[in-house]
Amino acid sequence: MMSRRHAFFISDRTGLTSESMGEALLDQFQEVKFKRSTYPFVDTPDKARAMVKIIETAANQTAMRPLVFSSIINEEIRDIIRNSPGLHLSFFDAFLGILEKELGTKARNEVGRNHGISDTARYDARMEAVNFTLNHDDGVSDKDLKDADVILMGVSRSGKTPTCLYLALQYGIRAANYPLTPDDLDKPDLPPMVKQYRNKIYGLTIKPERLADIREERRPNSNYASISTCKQEVADAQAMFRRFDIPFTNTTHKSVEELAASIMQACGLKRRF
Amino acid sequence: MMSRRHAFFISDRTGLTSESMGEALLDQFQEVKFKRSTYPFVDTPDKARAMVKIIETAANQTAMRPLVFSSIINEEIRDIIRNSPGLHLSFFDAFLGILEKELGTKARNEVGRNHGISDTARYDARMEAVNFTLNHDDGVSDKDLKDADVILMGVSRSGKTPTCLYLALQYGIRAANYPLTPDDLDKPDLPPMVKQYRNKIYGLTIKPERLADIREERRPNSNYASISTCKQEVADAQAMFRRFDIPFTNTTHKSVEELAASIMQACGLKRRF
Repeated sequence: MMSRRHAFFISDRTGLTSESMGEALLDQFQEVKFKRSTYPFVDTPDKARAMVKIIETAANQTAMRPLVFSSIINEEIRDIIRNSPGLHLSFFDAFLGILEKELGTKARNEVGRNHGISDTARYDARMEAVNFTLNHDDGVSDKDLKDADVILMGVSRSGKTPTCLYLALQYGIRAANYPLTPDDLDKPDLPPMVKQYRNKIYGLTIKPERLADIREERRPNSNYASISTCKQEVADAQAMFRRFDIPFTNTTHKSVEELAASIMQACGLKRRF
Repeated sequence: MMSRRHAFFISDRTGLTSESMGEALLDQFQEVKFKRSTYPFVDTPDKARAMVKIIETAANQTAMRPLVFSSIINEEIRDIIRNSPGLHLSFFDAFLGILEKELGTKARNEVGRNHGISDTARYDARMEAVNFTLNHDDGVSDKDLKDADVILMGVSRSGKTPTCLYLALQYGIRAANYPLTPDDLDKPDLPPMVKQYRNKIYGLTIKPERLADIREERRPNSNYASISTCKQEVADAQAMFRRFDIPFTNTTHKSVEELAASIMQACGLKRRF
């Protein structure tokens, strides 16, 4: 059978939890091909009934039972979805009862946090981290660098910017970054801008071949993108990390999520919201 | 009893799935206070045994059984953690068996995706989106604006930048943003830079009181931050959205995740990786 099995990620909120749960599970069955669709904000009985129709259509199309990964808090909506012809992997059904029993209290079965002070504080922490990170991208400013939670250092295109932004958005971390230029790498010392913050520096390195590919996209046929330049810069950067006892990681085979989580752990950082 | 119950989020990967799963569940019990800790990369039997010791200590400290939200793929490590004195809410235990039966095949019980072409493609899509978004933050450039997936428009400090960055990092979306200045708001037409892309524009609005608070942080006692300025700008921006039939949402009580997911849905955008 050529058709792929449908996998639905359904939520009455953003869908991020049901997606990450579903993807983690599907990733364990790499020989099976799936057709994925995410449906966020299924938060009324009407939307739930429309969702059931979509699942029914998918079931009829392929003769394979669709997989329905759901993270739906509201019981009424959960009940409607449960009557669709899919295999239901319902996150709240699996765990909420166990937790109610353990905690000796009923779940509120309601969407959303209390919208109040805590939300605002969360938003502000995140906003501050994003602004800090944007203002300290690519070594543009040493103003308030002392307030950085971490300073990522690495050669051009080693993955500093996306990682910093992810740290800011996901964890509220003020993440600066400093690009090691060939000039910096020629000197025996740490770059003056970051020298006094050595204990906040975390290094990123990358496979020279991958770096050359990335740079080639930016500046084709340049010395900057040549494999010999990339090899030299990466070797010099790693030598600098070792010389100054700076912890570092190789970004080549890591996702931004993995890099950010590793850095949080290695630097002993705590989520700010 | 004054002490809070321990809640552990444990994973052999980043911990993001176990955290989002655990937080969604704990959020249903708002009257209970928890002491949360996340432990990513528990990926060897030794680390798992160290983890068990930490859970044991927590259990002895509070006389309340710790909650252990785990997203651990490796069976050996899962078994070790299961022998700790916590209430185990194990995501893979709950669902992997059901899926194996339905799919008629065994889970590979291994961490990580295939590190190959697909990872690189994913990284590149994300990097491209982040670069695009940074290059089109705050209306700085109309170069390649035609390649934007979406253009967020709103008054200064209405939440455009963090939302754009989240869209880029989480979904690989090329999200530009354009800040509506008082000058723009005085004119009857859409700003020239974005006019030809009207169908890509999505509006952000915000409660004037909240906007005034945010702006006050930036420029205290300024006309820019005054409640009358904020009220006027927000009213003018909303009038513009209505006049040109631009869909918009109020950011005041929404998290960046909720905003991004709403925009994906409202604009019919698909994840790029």
